[in-house]
Amino acid sequence: MIVRELGAARNSERHVRGEGWDSTRLILAGDGMGFSFHITRIHEGTSHLFHYRHHLESVYCIAGEGTIEDLATGQVHEIRPGVLYALDKHDRHRLTARSEMVMACCFNPPVTGSEVHRADGSYAPAEEVA
Amino acid sequence: MIVRELGAARNSERHVRGEGWDSTRLILAGDGMGFSFHITRIHEGTSHLFHYRHHLESVYCIAGEGTIEDLATGQVHEIRPGVLYALDKHDRHRLTARSEMVMACCFNPPVTGSEVHRADGSYAPAEEVA
Repeated sequence: MIVRELGAARNSERHVRGEGWDSTRLILAGDGMGFSFHITRIHEGTSHLFHYRHHLESVYCIAGEGTIEDLATGQVHEIRPGVLYALDKHDRHRLTARSEMVMACCFNPPVTGSEVHRADGSYAPAEEVA
Repeated sequence: MIVRELGAARNSERHVRGEGWDSTRLILAGDGMGFSFHITRIHEGTSHLFHYRHHLESVYCIAGEGTIEDLATGQVHEIRPGVLYALDKHDRHRLTARSEMVMACCFNPPVTGSEVHRADGSYAPAEEVA
Protein backbone atom coordinates (compact mmCIF):
# COMPACT_ATOMS: atom_id res chain seq x y z
CA MET A 1 0.00 0.00 0.00
CA ILE A 2 1.28 3.42 -0.96
CA VAL A 3 0.25 6.44 1.18
CA ARG A 4 1.27 9.95 0.13
CA GLU A 5 0.29 13.44 1.20
CA LEU A 6 -0.04 16.44 -1.08
CA GLY A 7 1.76 18.92 1.16
CA ALA A 8 4.83 16.71 1.52
CA ALA A 9 4.83 15.87 -2.20
CA ARG A 10 4.82 19.59 -3.03
CA ASN A 11 8.18 19.81 -1.26
CA SER A 12 9.66 17.03 -3.39
CA GLU A 13 10.60 16.34 -7.00
CA ARG A 14 7.00 15.21 -7.51
CA HIS A 15 6.12 18.91 -7.76
CA VAL A 16 6.66 20.46 -11.20
CA ARG A 17 5.93 24.01 -12.31
CA GLY A 18 5.19 25.65 -15.62
CA GLU A 19 4.14 29.12 -16.70
CA GLY A 20 0.78 29.65 -14.94
CA TRP A 21 0.37 26.11 -13.60
CA ASP A 22 1.90 23.61 -11.23
CA SER A 23 1.33 19.91 -10.80
CA THR A 24 2.05 17.39 -8.05
CA ARG A 25 2.39 13.83 -9.28
CA LEU A 26 1.14 11.64 -6.45
CA ILE A 27 1.24 8.48 -8.59
CA LEU A 28 3.78 8.01 -11.40
CA ALA A 29 4.62 5.25 -13.86
CA GLY A 30 7.12 3.75 -11.44
CA ASP A 31 4.35 3.00 -8.95
CA GLY A 32 3.04 0.31 -11.27
CA MET A 33 -0.62 1.34 -11.15
CA GLY A 34 -0.97 1.63 -14.95
CA PHE A 35 -2.01 5.30 -14.70
CA SER A 36 -0.57 8.41 -13.10
CA PHE A 37 -2.50 10.73 -10.79
CA HIS A 38 -1.70 14.42 -10.39
CA ILE A 39 -3.15 17.35 -8.45
CA THR A 40 -2.73 20.29 -10.82
CA ARG A 41 -3.37 23.98 -10.20
CA ILE A 42 -4.13 26.31 -13.09
CA HIS A 43 -3.31 29.75 -11.79
CA GLU A 44 -5.93 32.52 -11.75
CA GLY A 45 -6.19 34.53 -14.94
CA THR A 46 -4.04 32.20 -17.06
CA SER A 47 -4.90 30.42 -20.31
CA HIS A 48 -3.11 27.38 -21.76
CA LEU A 49 -3.10 25.41 -24.97
CA PHE A 50 -2.55 21.71 -24.23
CA HIS A 51 -2.48 18.78 -26.59
CA TYR A 52 -1.59 15.36 -25.21
CA ARG A 53 -0.85 13.50 -28.42
CA HIS A 54 0.56 10.53 -26.59
CA HIS A 55 -1.67 10.29 -23.53
CA LEU A 56 -5.34 10.03 -22.58
CA GLU A 57 -6.23 12.32 -19.67
CA SER A 58 -9.27 12.83 -17.48
CA VAL A 59 -9.54 15.93 -15.30
CA TYR A 60 -11.94 16.45 -12.38
CA CYS A 61 -12.38 19.96 -10.99
CA ILE A 62 -12.10 20.08 -7.18
CA ALA A 63 -12.05 23.88 -6.80
CA GLY A 64 -12.06 27.04 -8.90
CA GLU A 65 -13.79 28.12 -12.09
CA GLY A 66 -12.92 28.54 -15.73
CA THR A 67 -13.50 27.09 -19.17
CA ILE A 68 -12.22 24.47 -21.58
CA GLU A 69 -12.43 25.11 -25.30
CA ASP A 70 -12.40 22.15 -27.66
CA LEU A 71 -10.20 23.50 -30.42
CA ALA A 72 -11.55 20.98 -32.95
CA THR A 73 -15.11 22.33 -32.64
CA GLY A 74 -14.79 25.71 -30.92
CA GLN A 75 -17.20 24.53 -28.24
CA VAL A 76 -16.58 26.04 -24.79
CA HIS A 77 -17.52 24.17 -21.62
CA GLU A 78 -17.75 25.72 -18.17
CA ILE A 79 -15.52 24.21 -15.51
CA ARG A 80 -16.50 24.39 -11.88
CA PRO A 81 -16.26 21.96 -8.94
CA GLY A 82 -17.87 18.64 -9.91
CA VAL A 83 -17.18 18.94 -13.64
CA LEU A 84 -15.00 16.30 -15.31
CA TYR A 85 -13.60 16.36 -18.81
CA ALA A 86 -11.83 13.51 -20.57
CA LEU A 87 -9.62 13.91 -23.60
CA ASP A 88 -10.60 10.60 -25.16
CA LYS A 89 -9.57 11.72 -28.64
CA HIS A 90 -6.28 13.37 -27.61
CA ASP A 91 -8.30 16.57 -28.00
CA ARG A 92 -6.39 19.78 -28.54
CA HIS A 93 -7.85 22.26 -26.05
CA ARG A 94 -7.50 25.60 -24.34
CA LEU A 95 -7.90 25.80 -20.59
CA THR A 96 -8.64 29.18 -19.00
CA ALA A 97 -8.87 29.86 -15.26
CA ARG A 98 -11.09 32.68 -13.99
CA SER A 99 -10.02 31.70 -10.48
CA GLU A 100 -7.34 29.22 -9.48
CA MET A 101 -8.54 25.78 -10.54
CA VAL A 102 -7.52 22.68 -8.57
CA MET A 103 -7.83 19.56 -10.70
CA ALA A 104 -7.44 15.81 -10.12
CA CYS A 105 -5.84 14.42 -13.30
CA CYS A 106 -5.38 10.81 -14.45
CA PHE A 107 -3.06 9.96 -17.34
CA ASN A 108 -2.86 6.77 -19.38
CA PRO A 109 -0.19 5.75 -20.13
CA PRO A 110 1.20 6.98 -16.82
CA VAL A 111 3.50 9.97 -16.81
CA THR A 112 7.04 8.98 -15.85
CA GLY A 113 7.78 12.22 -13.98
CA SER A 114 10.27 13.84 -16.30
CA GLU A 115 7.90 15.20 -18.97
CA VAL A 116 7.46 18.91 -19.64
CA HIS A 117 5.05 20.47 -22.12
CA ARG A 118 6.66 20.79 -25.53
CA ALA A 119 6.12 23.63 -27.96
CA ASP A 120 3.12 21.82 -29.48
CA GLY A 121 1.39 21.55 -26.08
CA SER A 122 2.03 17.81 -25.76
CA TYR A 123 3.99 15.67 -23.36
CA ALA A 124 6.67 13.53 -24.95
CA PRO A 125 5.76 9.86 -25.25
CA ALA A 126 7.20 7.68 -22.51
CA GLU A 127 9.86 6.18 -24.76
CA GLU A 128 11.37 9.63 -25.36
CA VAL A 129 11.73 10.55 -21.70
CA ALA A 130 12.69 7.22 -20.16
CA MET B 1 -13.99 15.18 -25.61
CA ILE B 2 -16.23 13.93 -22.84
CA VAL B 3 -17.67 16.45 -20.33
CA ARG B 4 -19.72 15.23 -17.37
CA GLU B 5 -21.00 16.82 -14.19
CA LEU B 6 -21.24 15.13 -10.83
CA GLY B 7 -24.72 16.40 -9.94
CA ALA B 8 -26.25 15.15 -13.19
CA ALA B 9 -24.38 11.83 -12.95
CA ARG B 10 -25.81 11.30 -9.45
CA ASN B 11 -29.25 11.28 -11.04
CA SER B 12 -28.27 8.56 -13.52
CA GLU B 13 -27.28 4.90 -13.55
CA ARG B 14 -23.70 6.08 -12.98
CA HIS B 15 -24.65 6.48 -9.33
CA VAL B 16 -24.45 3.27 -7.26
CA ARG B 17 -25.09 2.83 -3.58
CA GLY B 18 -23.98 0.33 -0.98
CA GLU B 19 -24.36 0.06 2.77
CA GLY B 20 -22.66 3.22 4.11
CA TRP B 21 -21.19 4.41 0.80
CA ASP B 22 -22.15 5.64 -2.63
CA SER B 23 -20.13 6.11 -5.77
CA THR B 24 -20.60 8.05 -8.98
CA ARG B 25 -18.71 6.61 -11.93
CA LEU B 26 -17.79 9.57 -14.11
CA ILE B 27 -15.54 7.48 -16.37
CA LEU B 28 -16.24 3.79 -17.05
CA ALA B 29 -14.62 1.08 -19.16
CA GLY B 30 -16.85 1.95 -22.09
CA ASP B 31 -15.30 5.41 -22.31
CA GLY B 32 -12.08 3.84 -23.57
CA MET B 33 -9.72 5.72 -21.24
CA GLY B 34 -8.08 2.56 -19.86
CA PHE B 35 -9.09 3.46 -16.29
CA SER B 36 -12.32 4.36 -14.53
CA PHE B 37 -12.79 7.41 -12.32
CA HIS B 38 -15.32 7.59 -9.51
CA ILE B 39 -16.31 10.13 -6.87
CA THR B 40 -17.09 8.01 -3.82
CA ARG B 41 -18.56 9.05 -0.49
CA ILE B 42 -17.94 6.98 2.62
CA HIS B 43 -20.71 7.91 5.00
CA GLU B 44 -19.96 9.31 8.44
CA GLY B 45 -19.46 6.73 11.16
CA THR B 46 -19.21 3.75 8.80
CA SER B 47 -16.42 1.19 8.43
CA HIS B 48 -15.83 -1.08 5.43
CA LEU B 49 -13.64 -4.03 4.54
CA PHE B 50 -12.63 -3.82 0.88
CA HIS B 51 -10.37 -6.09 -1.11
CA TYR B 52 -10.02 -5.47 -4.84
CA ARG B 53 -8.46 -8.73 -5.91
CA HIS B 54 -8.90 -7.95 -9.58
CA HIS B 55 -8.23 -4.21 -9.71
CA LEU B 56 -5.58 -1.67 -8.74
CA GLU B 57 -7.09 1.43 -7.14
CA SER B 58 -5.80 4.83 -6.07
CA VAL B 59 -7.90 7.04 -3.79
CA TYR B 60 -7.41 10.75 -3.16
CA CYS B 61 -9.26 12.38 -0.26
CA ILE B 62 -11.04 15.61 -1.27
CA ALA B 63 -13.01 16.11 1.95
CA GLY B 64 -13.65 14.43 5.28
CA GLU B 65 -11.54 12.48 7.74
CA GLY B 66 -11.00 8.90 8.73
CA THR B 67 -8.51 6.06 8.60
CA ILE B 68 -7.34 3.20 6.42
CA GLU B 69 -6.00 0.05 8.03
CA ASP B 70 -3.70 -2.20 6.04
CA LEU B 71 -5.00 -5.60 7.08
CA ALA B 72 -1.76 -7.32 6.06
CA THR B 73 0.31 -5.31 8.57
CA GLY B 74 -2.20 -3.77 10.98
CA GLN B 75 -0.81 -0.33 10.17
CA VAL B 76 -3.38 2.49 10.36
CA HIS B 77 -2.99 5.64 8.24
CA GLU B 78 -4.90 8.86 8.81
CA ILE B 79 -7.00 10.07 5.88
CA ARG B 80 -7.74 13.75 5.47
CA PRO B 81 -7.93 16.11 2.47
CA GLY B 82 -4.73 15.83 0.44
CA VAL B 83 -3.94 12.25 1.41
CA LEU B 84 -3.78 9.61 -1.32
CA TYR B 85 -3.53 5.87 -0.90
CA ALA B 86 -2.90 3.34 -3.64
CA LEU B 87 -3.63 -0.35 -3.37
CA ASP B 88 -0.71 -1.44 -5.50
CA LYS B 89 -0.66 -4.94 -4.01
CA HIS B 90 -4.45 -5.48 -4.11
CA ASP B 91 -4.19 -4.72 -0.40
CA ARG B 92 -7.00 -5.92 1.83
CA HIS B 93 -7.99 -2.92 3.93
CA ARG B 94 -10.50 -1.40 6.30
CA LEU B 95 -11.76 2.11 5.63
CA THR B 96 -13.40 4.03 8.48
CA ALA B 97 -15.00 7.47 8.18
CA ARG B 98 -15.08 9.78 11.21
CA SER B 99 -16.83 12.32 9.00
CA GLU B 100 -18.19 11.82 5.49
CA MET B 101 -15.19 11.28 3.22
CA VAL B 102 -15.33 12.36 -0.42
CA MET B 103 -12.77 10.47 -2.49
CA ALA B 104 -11.55 10.61 -6.10
CA CYS B 105 -10.90 6.99 -7.12
CA CYS B 106 -9.12 5.56 -10.17
CA PHE B 107 -9.40 1.88 -11.08
CA ASN B 108 -7.26 -0.18 -13.42
CA PRO B 109 -8.60 -2.15 -15.18
CA PRO B 110 -11.57 0.18 -15.50
CA VAL B 111 -14.82 -0.73 -13.78
CA THR B 112 -17.52 -1.60 -16.30
CA GLY B 113 -20.36 -0.12 -14.25
CA SER B 114 -22.17 -3.27 -13.19
CA GLU B 115 -19.90 -4.42 -10.35
CA VAL B 116 -21.04 -4.63 -6.75
CA HIS B 117 -18.90 -5.58 -3.77
CA ARG B 118 -18.96 -9.31 -3.22
CA ALA B 119 -18.95 -11.05 0.14
CA ASP B 120 -15.13 -11.08 0.14
CA GLY B 121 -14.95 -7.28 -0.34
CA SER B 122 -13.82 -7.51 -3.97
CA TYR B 123 -15.30 -6.42 -7.25
CA ALA B 124 -15.79 -9.21 -9.76
CA PRO B 125 -13.21 -9.24 -12.56
CA ALA B 126 -14.41 -7.61 -15.76
CA GLU B 127 -14.94 -10.92 -17.54
CA GLU B 128 -17.52 -11.97 -14.92
CA VAL B 129 -19.68 -8.87 -15.20
CA ALA B 130 -19.55 -8.21 -18.94
